[in-house]
Amino acid sequence: MRVTPWEVEGKIDYNKLIKEFGTKKIGEELLKRMEKLAGELHVLIRRGFFFSHRDLDKVLEDFEKGKGFFLYTGRGPTGDMHLGHILSFELVKWFQKRFGVNLYIAISDDEKFLQKRLSWEEVDKYAKRNIEDIASIGFDEDKTFIFRDSEYIGRVYKLMLKAARKVTFSTAKAVFGFTNETNVGLSFYPIYQIIPTFFEKKRALIPAGIDQDPYWRIQRDIAESLGYYKAAAIHSKFFPPLQGLEGKMSSSNPRTAIWLNDGEEEVKRKIMKYAFSGGKPTIEEHRKYGGDINVDIPYQWLSIFFEEDDKRLEEIARSYTKGEMLSGEIKMLLVEKINNYLKEHRRKKKVVEKKIRKMMYEGKLAREMWEKSFE
Amino acid sequence: MRVTPWEVEGKIDYNKLIKEFGTKKIGEELLKRMEKLAGELHVLIRRGFFFSHRDLDKVLEDFEKGKGFFLYTGRGPTGDMHLGHILSFELVKWFQKRFGVNLYIAISDDEKFLQKRLSWEEVDKYAKRNIEDIASIGFDEDKTFIFRDSEYIGRVYKLMLKAARKVTFSTAKAVFGFTNETNVGLSFYPIYQIIPTFFEKKRALIPAGIDQDPYWRIQRDIAESLGYYKAAAIHSKFFPPLQGLEGKMSSSNPRTAIWLNDGEEEVKRKIMKYAFSGGKPTIEEHRKYGGDINVDIPYQWLSIFFEEDDKRLEEIARSYTKGEMLSGEIKMLLVEKINNYLKEHRRKKKVVEKKIRKMMYEGKLAREMWEKSFE
Repeated sequence: MRVTPWEVEGKIDYNKLIKEFGTKKIGEELLKRMEKLAGELHVLIRRGFFFSHRDLDKVLEDFEKGKGFFLYTGRGPTGDMHLGHILSFELVKWFQKRFGVNLYIAISDDEKFLQKRLSWEEVDKYAKRNIEDIASIGFDEDKTFIFRDSEYIGRVYKLMLKAARKVTFSTAKAVFGFTNETNVGLSFYPIYQIIPTFFEKKRALIPAGIDQDPYWRIQRDIAESLGYYKAAAIHSKFFPPLQGLEGKMSSSNPRTAIWLNDGEEEVKRKIMKYAFSGGKPTIEEHRKYGGDINVDIPYQWLSIFFEEDDKRLEEIARSYTKGEMLSGEIKMLLVEKINNYLKEHRRKKKVVEKKIRKMMYEGKLAREMWEKSFE
Repeated sequence: MRVTPWEVEGKIDYNKLIKEFGTKKIGEELLKRMEKLAGELHVLIRRGFFFSHRDLDKVLEDFEKGKGFFLYTGRGPTGDMHLGHILSFELVKWFQKRFGVNLYIAISDDEKFLQKRLSWEEVDKYAKRNIEDIASIGFDEDKTFIFRDSEYIGRVYKLMLKAARKVTFSTAKAVFGFTNETNVGLSFYPIYQIIPTFFEKKRALIPAGIDQDPYWRIQRDIAESLGYYKAAAIHSKFFPPLQGLEGKMSSSNPRTAIWLNDGEEEVKRKIMKYAFSGGKPTIEEHRKYGGDINVDIPYQWLSIFFEEDDKRLEEIARSYTKGEMLSGEIKMLLVEKINNYLKEHRRKKKVVEKKIRKMMYEGKLAREMWEKSFE
């Protein structure tokens, strides 16, 4: 197992990660408290895909006391988005709906231009396409601000200077794995990543893969000295690639993922062909010994997000484990679920232009953010 | 002798510096060519205070061919300005007037906040006061753009990203003396310093102390690969402090300098008391042996800038060297010249508000610059 912000390898032991990163498990008590406040629990939390946190208890306490909190997430536009990318957006959508809070979504076009060998035109193209996908997910248009780093810099640069003065290159090296050969733009970028956590004088709740946790270490080191709150986080496991439970779904290998713009036939083809199965080699053996849901990717994906109905999921588990349900059948269940999700996504995307305009420029929160300047 | 962008010590051998920095002396031929184009030579050039250059010949060639060039200079707002600070502004004023070109003046509030232990409020205060002094010098209000880095960042950030991708921390360390303990903001700043050299697709001519030359090495390394010109420079010697010819006038020691806001009595008091004299200890000895203009600060200051009349300066040199003119008399000549200069400066400063507005926002060039975005 190897987990850093820039590398995830091997079979992951999540309890060990909690220890190593010094975070906390989302336990029964916290789940109950959240359920009481929200009226329900989102499937991604209920099934434990988001399993660890920092200060989530304080976030809930702030909410209970009427102080509130806000949500912050983002996207680095290096390519089109796949299913693994949308889970945290689905979760913030739920948080926003249930808690009625503001949501800030950073599109880090600057970071990705500095980090990758992409041209500005490419980053720009993906930024626009990613925003279409993200906006289609459906947030409160008056409580959501989607911004491109390169476009919003003028409003945050002074505050960035204040934060930057507190972070040495040495620290950035240790936390982000920078070297002397890192370009000076990228070494400054992490400061921008921190800034949205200062957009309100409340606690920011950030949903992210647990591998991203070190990125917030600097924020938590400097926030209070600048008069802001330490960021809170809720950490997810890694969405497993089609090929099996190790590593994470990767943009660089198209076969490992289902893309948001994959068509119905493509989804079916990929899952039938590539999804790692916990079923037995022959129908006879499968009927006799049953499938293994612990390694079966179709089952895992249904369990993480795509089958929200707990009873139905239980029935699938039972029937697949007993060998009543075949590998091809459970795959088809997933194909259908994903295609329904993507069909709905395509429908929403067709009318997304106005939503983008509101969340980027014209909605209540967006207007407030463009009128402001942070110092 | 020790000359780096962050340290100037000892008695300076300027011919040695030309060799060490790999620049070129401004020779007779170049002086004649400039005089022919400009109709005259500015005192700072004529007397050799600006003595070295990079590509000044190419700048003149571009001008001769009708392609033109532009001027770029700046100010780091760490305190009030002294006489040593205005010389390069006087020179660009002359260049602008004689060649009719655009002038860009960067106020690097970001750099100074990142570099010094000043609060933002202090940097902000000095930025405003420095802009008043600079604008009072008197530039073409439709061909001059004065901008504060922190305010203009939104228009240049994308171009900064492109430049930043070409500069590693390693290079920044070598050129600027950064270390691992340098903050990540300051390590990014040099990119901003480079950007104004890309404001036009022409050659930028930068007047600066020769110690600042290494700062432009990075610009000259990356400019052409980004589709722009290598910056040209015209280098000055160091304006000597009141106490004598070694080192340079320093903001951190108020006694070494005359400030633009020093009153008439203060100017007189400082020069009479602190200006290093090349005169003899007693009047008798002075009458007999004469003064040494080579070390006499009042004579040096008159020669560098404050006595424009060559014949009068020659007469002063003759008479002081012969002992006819006393140390107190040459000092009073300088007091009068400086007080006249500062009186005129104060007069212009009283009506500077409108000029500032034009050069920062409403003049022809300023409006063009605010409408633009650099990529």
